[in-house]
Amino acid sequence: MSVQKIYRVEHEGAARYALEYEGSYRLIDGDALSGPPYKTAAVVVPNRILSAVTPSKVVAIGLNYKDHAAERNKPLPPEPLMFMKPSTAVIGPGDAIRLPRGVGRVDYEAEMAIVIGKRAHRVPAASAMDYVLGVTCINDVTARDLQTRDVQYTRAKGFDTFAPIGPCIAVGLDPSALDIEGWVNDERRQSSNTRQLIFSVPEIIAHISAVMTLLPGDVIATGTPAGIGSLTPGDRFTVKIEGVGELSNPVVE
Amino acid sequence: MSVQKIYRVEHEGAARYALEYEGSYRLIDGDALSGPPYKTAAVVVPNRILSAVTPSKVVAIGLNYKDHAAERNKPLPPEPLMFMKPSTAVIGPGDAIRLPRGVGRVDYEAEMAIVIGKRAHRVPAASAMDYVLGVTCINDVTARDLQTRDVQYTRAKGFDTFAPIGPCIAVGLDPSALDIEGWVNDERRQSSNTRQLIFSVPEIIAHISAVMTLLPGDVIATGTPAGIGSLTPGDRFTVKIEGVGELSNPVVE
Repeated sequence: MSVQKIYRVEHEGAARYALEYEGSYRLIDGDALSGPPYKTAAVVVPNRILSAVTPSKVVAIGLNYKDHAAERNKPLPPEPLMFMKPSTAVIGPGDAIRLPRGVGRVDYEAEMAIVIGKRAHRVPAASAMDYVLGVTCINDVTARDLQTRDVQYTRAKGFDTFAPIGPCIAVGLDPSALDIEGWVNDERRQSSNTRQLIFSVPEIIAHISAVMTLLPGDVIATGTPAGIGSLTPGDRFTVKIEGVGELSNPVVE
Repeated sequence: MSVQKIYRVEHEGAARYALEYEGSYRLIDGDALSGPPYKTAAVVVPNRILSAVTPSKVVAIGLNYKDHAAERNKPLPPEPLMFMKPSTAVIGPGDAIRLPRGVGRVDYEAEMAIVIGKRAHRVPAASAMDYVLGVTCINDVTARDLQTRDVQYTRAKGFDTFAPIGPCIAVGLDPSALDIEGWVNDERRQSSNTRQLIFSVPEIIAHISAVMTLLPGDVIATGTPAGIGSLTPGDRFTVKIEGVGELSNPVVE
């Protein structure tokens, strides 16, 4: 099946999903998260592209690229290391990442995110892809000094605006071998491919869903490759994923 | 103002809030989370009492009683230590806590929980109580061996059924000096008073809301006193909080 891109857009004051095709957007009738085939209605010109999804939870996997584990001087984890970002951290493409005062260094982390399409409880890896709606980009913004100080990641990764998600959900896209990049302004800082994941997407879904039920719209951030670094007010950070597109956000104080 | 108890109940197949008075329940018209005065309608006999709230997030504070920090051989934290439990872990009074297979020891933790009534973003401690709807009980069930092994608490505290919440929200109850107990079957294992909190409720709300916006219905678990211990299939664990009531759940394999 071909890949379809769905965008969450603002239309007449409400959030709607629209199917994008060659630059035009058609509103989707019914529940877009349950997947294709999509029944589309009017062509619209969106006022604004919103976060690709409003998840009930964002579960993230730490240290899932060998090169990133090496740059942080961490041993490879024996099993996926999970943590959560609060849904209140989610923002959309173009929305500002706000750096909190007095927390020290704040880093970008370009990551591939998986959007869940069906309730998943104790799903084996072999059938895990049946529960995936599609792929999007996430920037797992992290207050690095707080992460070290707190040990628990919740505060360091949980500030409002620390989870840009978008620009679209690439429905039906195979996540197993996609180029992924992170750019600070016009400089490429991260460049890898999801083939380099230590734990694959099906393994991650099996691991998480053995603990907590995943609901439609829930997001799994699959880890960041090497090349992490800090953000400064005035920067713009862009996550690029092959077959998905670009998620770009300005950084403000 | 006097304290009012509101229960989330199942009525004609839907979840509704009801105001309890001397053992009878009156359905509340409108949004119960925005607080009193409540406009009530018919008296009902609930089929079932549900979790007191369905939070968008559960934020919890670790090591917030001196006696519990001592029993875990942990130094007192210099500031509140926050972590999250997923909303999919929430269950109601009487619902079974399911012990996952192969995770080792699973512990109870009786805690006072605060239910947020108003969107709270960067709220100072001095006005934090204006954002509180009321008080309820939570059992912060924890897979203790996994907590130690993972370092991050997400998995250990995130299993489905690991967040019983209820039985009601005591709206308007002052949380600053309430007796709190945890019982395994007919044996009292935890007994303290919320006067013993290291960080007070207003301090916790100020600390969390400086990081992440709290939404109406969000729950803050304020930490557990000394006396933690493990659960075995067939046990029943009960949290008792003065002015709130009892949250009791069976434990199954």
